[in-house]
Amino acid sequence: MPAPQSTSGVKALVFDVFGTVVDWRGSLIADFTNWSRTRGITADWAALVDAWRGAYMPSMNEVRKNPARGFLNLDTLHRTSLERLVTEQGIKGLTDADLAYINRGWHRLTPWADSVAGLTRLKTKFVISPLSNGNVALLVNMAKHAGLPWDLILCAEVFRHYKPDPETYLGAAKMLGLEPGEVMLVAAHNSDLKGAQGCGLATCFVPRPTEYGPHQNRDFGPEGEWTMVVSDIGDLADRFGC
Amino acid sequence: MPAPQSTSGVKALVFDVFGTVVDWRGSLIADFTNWSRTRGITADWAALVDAWRGAYMPSMNEVRKNPARGFLNLDTLHRTSLERLVTEQGIKGLTDADLAYINRGWHRLTPWADSVAGLTRLKTKFVISPLSNGNVALLVNMAKHAGLPWDLILCAEVFRHYKPDPETYLGAAKMLGLEPGEVMLVAAHNSDLKGAQGCGLATCFVPRPTEYGPHQNRDFGPEGEWTMVVSDIGDLADRFGC
Repeated sequence: MPAPQSTSGVKALVFDVFGTVVDWRGSLIADFTNWSRTRGITADWAALVDAWRGAYMPSMNEVRKNPARGFLNLDTLHRTSLERLVTEQGIKGLTDADLAYINRGWHRLTPWADSVAGLTRLKTKFVISPLSNGNVALLVNMAKHAGLPWDLILCAEVFRHYKPDPETYLGAAKMLGLEPGEVMLVAAHNSDLKGAQGCGLATCFVPRPTEYGPHQNRDFGPEGEWTMVVSDIGDLADRFGC
Repeated sequence: MPAPQSTSGVKALVFDVFGTVVDWRGSLIADFTNWSRTRGITADWAALVDAWRGAYMPSMNEVRKNPARGFLNLDTLHRTSLERLVTEQGIKGLTDADLAYINRGWHRLTPWADSVAGLTRLKTKFVISPLSNGNVALLVNMAKHAGLPWDLILCAEVFRHYKPDPETYLGAAKMLGLEPGEVMLVAAHNSDLKGAQGCGLATCFVPRPTEYGPHQNRDFGPEGEWTMVVSDIGDLADRFGC
């Protein structure tokens, strides 16, 4: 399906969340560093967080390769990876409640500075929703914590498929009662935009060059013929006259 | 599962929508009456609306009895019923665009006077969501039109089951990452509350004695041991100190 060249028909904006709307790496490292001081637990939290995010794609691939096992949501995948990494990295003294607290760190992420104001402006003209691999509870709790003014929550758990499976992009358009070209994916990741474009959605790249901290090695700029390229979510609101 | 006797553990409030949050009958009759004047179409719109709502339960039963046919969302069921009723009631001169406009009337419903203010107050302490037999697009468009400040949209289309199937009540709790007793269904219909109670949810009855206009013949008061009974959504916010 040809992806739209113009934004004139766009009625809904769906957003990648981890990295695009919120600073998962900076948030988690700060959260665990502050929390562990009160608990007397020592760890290289940056190393844990980086390894944890490294386990993200492989864990979703396991779900994709084993459909008979049923869909497992991201809280569940995070918990499985976390238990393995805590052992591998020799982090001692964590209770079950501590592991639950750490796993819920993904529900407490902090938005980039432009996200809340930009989304609030865009909401006046568009339906706005996450289209995230996070699960519903994670995204709802994050929205309450961070003040993200979503109209609704669309995510992998609803479609029982992880991005970039087409079921996610096409499922979002269908549930919104829209044609794919009436929906724009906003993301900081070229691979996600490629998946959306392949399903006929409009696409918008927003660079987040500090997402991976010192380990960032990709997504510094657009690597496809995206419908729009903006500097941040505020700039996107400017472009749409919101 | 025993339904909770107290509201102290409730973290999310899920709302029946048609009749509980919005005045579907009054809204549709006013909408079609005003619209038809400009189109030169004559009909007994109250009769159409009442018969249309009368087709609601049977149409969902057809979906329930024929799972092999797949899930059909409420916009689709409404359209099928509408086409039949227009013929039966001899309403002439409707184009396909007119039928689409009438069917979208369910996306343009008006809230009861206490709904928006009450929900806005409740949102400060609770996750608030519809738990409606409406579909996602219908409920999102209604929220934009009416100013309903939902945190997310949960509905039959997400669970591919219509209330009172247990998959809806239990699916809502699961997606919210909560135990059933941490979720309260707020509804003007005793049958809906009975379904929720049977799944272990907390329950709150709110009377809407004019929902069916002169044809109201039930749900004037609570007919079960519900966790709460309130006079309207503002009263519910008062009770929770919001």
